[in-house]
Amino acid sequence: MVPHLTTALNGPLLELEQRILEGSSAIERWFRLRWQAHEAPFYTSVDLRNSGFKLAPVDTNLFPGGFNNLNAAFIPLAVQAATSLIERLCPEARNLLLVPENHTRNRWYLENVAVLATILRQTGLEVRLGSLNPEITAPTELETATGKKLVVEPLQRTGLRLGLEGFDPCAILLNNDLSSGIPEILRGLSEQLLLPPLHAGWAVRTKSQHFHAYDDVAADFAQLLKIDPWLVNPYHAQCGEIDFQARAGEECLSSNVSMLLEKIRIKYLEYGIKDTPYVAVKADAGTYGMGVMMVRDASEVRDLNRKQRNKMAVVKEGLVVSNVIIQEGVHTVERIEDKVAEPVVYMIGQHVIGGFYRVHGARGAEDNLNAPGMHFVPLAFEESCILPDPHASCDAPPNRFYAYGVVGRLAAAGAALELERTAPTA
Amino acid sequence: MVPHLTTALNGPLLELEQRILEGSSAIERWFRLRWQAHEAPFYTSVDLRNSGFKLAPVDTNLFPGGFNNLNAAFIPLAVQAATSLIERLCPEARNLLLVPENHTRNRWYLENVAVLATILRQTGLEVRLGSLNPEITAPTELETATGKKLVVEPLQRTGLRLGLEGFDPCAILLNNDLSSGIPEILRGLSEQLLLPPLHAGWAVRTKSQHFHAYDDVAADFAQLLKIDPWLVNPYHAQCGEIDFQARAGEECLSSNVSMLLEKIRIKYLEYGIKDTPYVAVKADAGTYGMGVMMVRDASEVRDLNRKQRNKMAVVKEGLVVSNVIIQEGVHTVERIEDKVAEPVVYMIGQHVIGGFYRVHGARGAEDNLNAPGMHFVPLAFEESCILPDPHASCDAPPNRFYAYGVVGRLAAAGAALELERTAPTA
Repeated sequence: MVPHLTTALNGPLLELEQRILEGSSAIERWFRLRWQAHEAPFYTSVDLRNSGFKLAPVDTNLFPGGFNNLNAAFIPLAVQAATSLIERLCPEARNLLLVPENHTRNRWYLENVAVLATILRQTGLEVRLGSLNPEITAPTELETATGKKLVVEPLQRTGLRLGLEGFDPCAILLNNDLSSGIPEILRGLSEQLLLPPLHAGWAVRTKSQHFHAYDDVAADFAQLLKIDPWLVNPYHAQCGEIDFQARAGEECLSSNVSMLLEKIRIKYLEYGIKDTPYVAVKADAGTYGMGVMMVRDASEVRDLNRKQRNKMAVVKEGLVVSNVIIQEGVHTVERIEDKVAEPVVYMIGQHVIGGFYRVHGARGAEDNLNAPGMHFVPLAFEESCILPDPHASCDAPPNRFYAYGVVGRLAAAGAALELERTAPTA
Repeated sequence: MVPHLTTALNGPLLELEQRILEGSSAIERWFRLRWQAHEAPFYTSVDLRNSGFKLAPVDTNLFPGGFNNLNAAFIPLAVQAATSLIERLCPEARNLLLVPENHTRNRWYLENVAVLATILRQTGLEVRLGSLNPEITAPTELETATGKKLVVEPLQRTGLRLGLEGFDPCAILLNNDLSSGIPEILRGLSEQLLLPPLHAGWAVRTKSQHFHAYDDVAADFAQLLKIDPWLVNPYHAQCGEIDFQARAGEECLSSNVSMLLEKIRIKYLEYGIKDTPYVAVKADAGTYGMGVMMVRDASEVRDLNRKQRNKMAVVKEGLVVSNVIIQEGVHTVERIEDKVAEPVVYMIGQHVIGGFYRVHGARGAEDNLNAPGMHFVPLAFEESCILPDPHASCDAPPNRFYAYGVVGRLAAAGAALELERTAPTA
């Protein structure tokens, strides 16, 4: 599944990468203090885009799949990070209930669940799988893409506690992003630690809240490194009250698209960038790359045809799109054998544990590589993201990976702030 | 320097390893709770011996050198562990002063210092080197074995604080085991975090205090796994008031040697072991393998010739031996291309970060591979010590390495208890 390609990291020499490399001590201390004040999410994966002049997060996932795409050699980093986290969050824990997504037929997703369960077990937890899927009414054996066996069991709610037959966990870890709403069975579990919290699910969470929080993190970080925050932060705007089917809200959309494209044009002039500005219009809640459009001109969102409207109207599990985020598009200049490569960075708690590239040949640099049905080839990062080499060029693989890890952590810090701000008041 | 040998792990299939593998979840939880109650030392390296029927620590070093012998691929594990530790111990820290050993001409030792400094810098600390060596009166550039440059500076004491010219650290890390006593300049640094504490130095520490504490840890662990604690714990006894030059204390020594050899014989009978029991007589304080004798019969310690007495009388930096520990010898059955191999496990805080084998051809299985002037070849562990493979045999490399990591951590837990017990009352 993973081809043995060489990672040809040929982006233009980044002044940003140079600053990150030189500032590595200050950056690590900054993160150390930051995590003291704002608890990192349990786990995070962040889609990055590298345009040579700019390295920025475009999507921050708080229920990451794809652990199976990481370099197996670095799984010990994940185990150590998870051990530290469990030590802090629930040192007494013996049992952990892992709640995966409902789609039991995606065998690569199940492979991810198997890897995640292995990491968690190695921290000293008994890990069992409980499903929200109503079709799972008895313990069910499922096979992963590489032939591993997983047993998924029906959840059992008893008073304030959630568990399985004969299994009473101290902690519950969701690997289900709750796109279809918060199930009753997960509400009011006041006696158990539920990770991530319910308001991290797509039933509640919005991308615009995330990027608003990220604005603050990026501004702080930019001040630390004395750089333009725009270099790590895509412009964004939002529109509510959209109804793609009824063609309501198109005015808000097109005026925001115009405004954003103009702001990008000014930045491109400032930095002498010759690329064509574009924006991504995305559902404000939801994931899996559904409900995404790439737009180079405001007129494009005023003349949506039926197919485009249908595509934008719903995301995963039928969630209807009524709010959208308009986000500056970041051109991807990274190529592996002429194929567009988009890095994804993984964190457990505050620790970067690795990442991989989504590698695709057919699409252009500005398209979304995580579109539904998109066939990408995952290519695990060859090296860890935590050991820059100050003697190598700022573009050398350890330094490029380190920069990914820094920007990935910035996004996780944004998510930490976002979750604090959106937490229900007790 | 490091030959590319294959690690041929051909020890007899260990029931102990099987228990450790099966109990991995329980073991990890046990450690998790243990570290909550007893703070792990800042860093530890542990010499292990594997006799096939027994896997036990023989030496626990609280000022480890040899970081340069670890597998470079796993240095990120060390960085992550150090980051977690600094986060907990001194989150605000910006500057760290590293105090190395005085022997500035051992270029491999300097290589170790360079690797250690790299690990610490990557946690976001400014790291500078300050020497206790009175010959260092100005910043001095030293070259490591691989040609890296290190600058060592004279220490400056100002009131209650220790630093360098223009450098006021929050934390001071000793990589100097204080064999020649506690220097005045290190006393009473009440405003700074001194790691490890002064009573971890060989001026104060004794091996018998360590192994007394280890007895308790091994007993707890044995209860958890329902095994005989002897399988992870060598018998030991001690004699004070020894004067090798004056031939005083030989009676205590020979009676303890007899007693220990008899206890070992009984265990060997119980387990059907055909090997010849032996004990190691070691200086109770001190390191570097000086002051060590291997004894198969009590008569051997009654008839010491001048050379043997001289060898035992002093250890590193002229420290006179007046207390000895007599320790059950553990036969080494591990061989790499017919050469005796002794594993050394490294920890930062409670995390195992790797290890290496001391590989030597000429000596026998029961000799001490860390003797002065002994030329060993370090062979880095190929895999991490934290990811056992439950589907492989208990003797497969990931599982063997995992067992090393477990017993290494037991020794670190012993050291944690030892340091609590020997801490000066405030």
